[in-house]
Order: sequence, then C-alpha cells, then structure tokens
Amino acid sequence: MLKLYDYWRSSAAYRTRIGLHLKGADYESIPVNIMPGVDEQMREPYRSKNPQMRVPALETEQGLITQSMSILVWLDQTYPEPRLMPADPWLGAQVRSFALTIATDIHPLNNTSVLTRLKLEFGASEDHVGEWYRHWIKLGFNALEHQAQQRPETQYAFGDAPTLADVCLVPQMANARRFHTDLTPFPRLVAWDERARQHPAFIKAAPENQKDAVKK
Amino acid sequence: MLKLYDYWRSSAAYRTRIGLHLKGADYESIPVNIMPGVDEQMREPYRSKNPQMRVPALETEQGLITQSMSILVWLDQTYPEPRLMPADPWLGAQVRSFALTIATDIHPLNNTSVLTRLKLEFGASEDHVGEWYRHWIKLGFNALEHQAQQRPETQYAFGDAPTLADVCLVPQMANARRFHTDLTPFPRLVAWDERARQHPAFIKAAPENQKDAVKK
Repeated sequence: MLKLYDYWRSSAAYRTRIGLHLKGADYESIPVNIMPGVDEQMREPYRSKNPQMRVPALETEQGLITQSMSILVWLDQTYPEPRLMPADPWLGAQVRSFALTIATDIHPLNNTSVLTRLKLEFGASEDHVGEWYRHWIKLGFNALEHQAQQRPETQYAFGDAPTLADVCLVPQMANARRFHTDLTPFPRLVAWDERARQHPAFIKAAPENQKDAVKK
Repeated sequence: MLKLYDYWRSSAAYRTRIGLHLKGADYESIPVNIMPGVDEQMREPYRSKNPQMRVPALETEQGLITQSMSILVWLDQTYPEPRLMPADPWLGAQVRSFALTIATDIHPLNNTSVLTRLKLEFGASEDHVGEWYRHWIKLGFNALEHQAQQRPETQYAFGDAPTLADVCLVPQMANARRFHTDLTPFPRLVAWDERARQHPAFIKAAPENQKDAVKK
C-alpha cells in the first residue's frame, strides 16, 4: 500500500491527500511532525529517507516520490480516472498555470521555514510576518481572480469537476483564512473553495480530519 | 509563430528558452524589461496581457500560457521529441521532483520581487540579501547533490540526454554563480551544468546570447 509522509497542517501534504482521495487510492498516512522546535523532518529516520527534509513524500512500490506537484502528476498517470488535468495540452496548461501560481508564487514564500528565517535573520515580529504572508497571497490571488472572471459560471475552477487547480486552491485558502487575509476581493476563488470543500475527497483530506490534527 | 515574452536574465524565462531550443520550435522573443525601476511587466500593454505581471509567458495560436513549468509541459506535449520527461511515471516523477526542488524550493525565494521586498520591508542590506539568496540555494542543492550521488556516471542529470532537470538546473547554477555561491560541495551538479552548457540548445538560450542582454 502507498504510504504518505504527512503532516495535518502542511498545505503541500493537504494537496496530495486530496489527490489520493479523488483517485480513491488506498494509502497509509505516516505523520511527520514539522512543528518548529519538533522538526521530525530534519531528524532520523526521516532525514535519510528524504534528504530534502520536507513533507509530503509518497512511498510507492518503486520507491519514494518527493514534491507535492510531482506526486500529483504521478497519481494522475497511475490512476487515470478521474483526471486531475485536461488531456488537451492548452487547457491542461491553463489548469497547471493556475496551480503553479499557488505552488510557486505564493506557497514557497509562506512556508514555515521561510517565516522562521524572517524572524531569525531580520528580527521580524509576528505582525510583520503576517503582513509578508498576506502580501504574497493577495498578489497571487489577484491574478487568479482576474482570470477567474472569464469563468463566472463554473462550479469548480475549470468546469464541473475538480482539477489540479482546486487541489491547490483549497489548501491555500485554508492558509489565507488562518492568517486572517481579507478574501472579499476574491469572490470566484471563495465560491470555488466553498464548493470544493463539500466534495467527499476534500472532506477526507481536510487538516482537521487527520489523525495527527491538534484540536484547539 | 510562437512569441515568448522574455527577459534575458530571468531564470524562469531562460528555462523556457532552453525548452524551445531543445524542441527546435521557432519562436520570436519579445523582451519585457523587469529590472526594478523599469518594471515593464507591471505596465501596459503587458499588464493586461498577463495579469500575473511576470515573465515568461508564451503566446500560442490558442492563447497565452503563463508559468515556466506549465509552458515546458505544453512544449513537451506539443513537440513530442526529444522528450523532456521520461514516459515511465516513476522515472518521470524523479525528474519532476528534481526540477521542482529548484522551481518551488529555491527560485521563488530568490526572485527579484522577493529580494526587493526584503530590502523595503526589513531594511535588509545587499550583504544580508546575498546570504538569504545563498541559504536557499545551498539547502536545495544539498538535497539534489545527495540524490545525485546515486547517478555518478551520467552525462546529464538523468542519463545521456537533457531532461527537465537540466532545463531547471542550468539557469539556477547561473544565478548561484552570480551571487557568489560556493559550489564546491556540489560536484555532480557542477559537472552536469558544465556538460549541459555545451549543448547547442543551451548555448542559444543563454542570457548573454539574448538580444536584450546588457553587456558589462
């Protein structure tokens, strides 16, 4: 069976959980506690398994796959239905561009390791880190919302079924809410996120429904 | 003909130029000067064309594609030979994970817009920005070099022909050198980069060979 090295509140891990549930793929979640100060991802035995020292990572019969976006492509090729990306190259590119705006332009700047470094290196306060966080979300979401106006009637970001775009949007929206981002300028993104969070695969993948979730 | 909205020193644009030349695809380069203070990407006419206000973007017969990694997948699907990614899903995942370690874990943190924000928001000095830059390169390259030791004999990162891994590695290595990063801990990465830079497609795509290159 597939094993996912996982952390309930990692939004990259959240993406891969959504992908696994959309595909109906059986997997075992192995929590790796990446909370600053605990840092299991930097210690043995995980460190030797994945020298990138990040979650998620997916253990397959052939070996480990790192990087959430790479795991999702592998899932889409290995479990063809339902498709996470349209077969048409140009439509597929639009879906991937949406997803990559989150995965490369927003999320890497809001990673825990980056926020920790801002505090350590530049003496950034919590408030200042929050502003930094929201800045990159707003910049990326502005671009996505602008393009979204071209698809005002769709249930999901690219039609009537979830794609890689929704798989990346929902975890990023959860982060945006956690950091008190004003979402009123992004009505299409909010609508797609709300719709997707009612889908059974998205419910099963939600951070609060993971076995390592810390209840408030 | 394809039109690439391009900037000679953008490493994301550099990736797409390598991809275009590897595929032998005819394209016209349209420079967009993203130098801080010039910022053509934030002004009309480019801003309306690409509300993400970033380069590269590829104008195709069907419309615009943004995001370098999305452009490269489109190229690989539209011009099947030579392949940028192995057809085997697991091998493909290894190549994509390598490329994404650069595209999501290193490059977004070293983007001009991020460095500018560090200076503006946190009063970071040039030296401090340089340390930040090299920190993320070292972290990512450490992981890649560690995995690279498993392939000590290959000419390119994944065998005897360039893949998406080399397409991402070479521009990142150029950035690493520009910011005076000590590359001695990364002998495999250095060897692959040196080999790839002798390939005609990589030569044609090099920053210094672009029409908008600023000579020192």
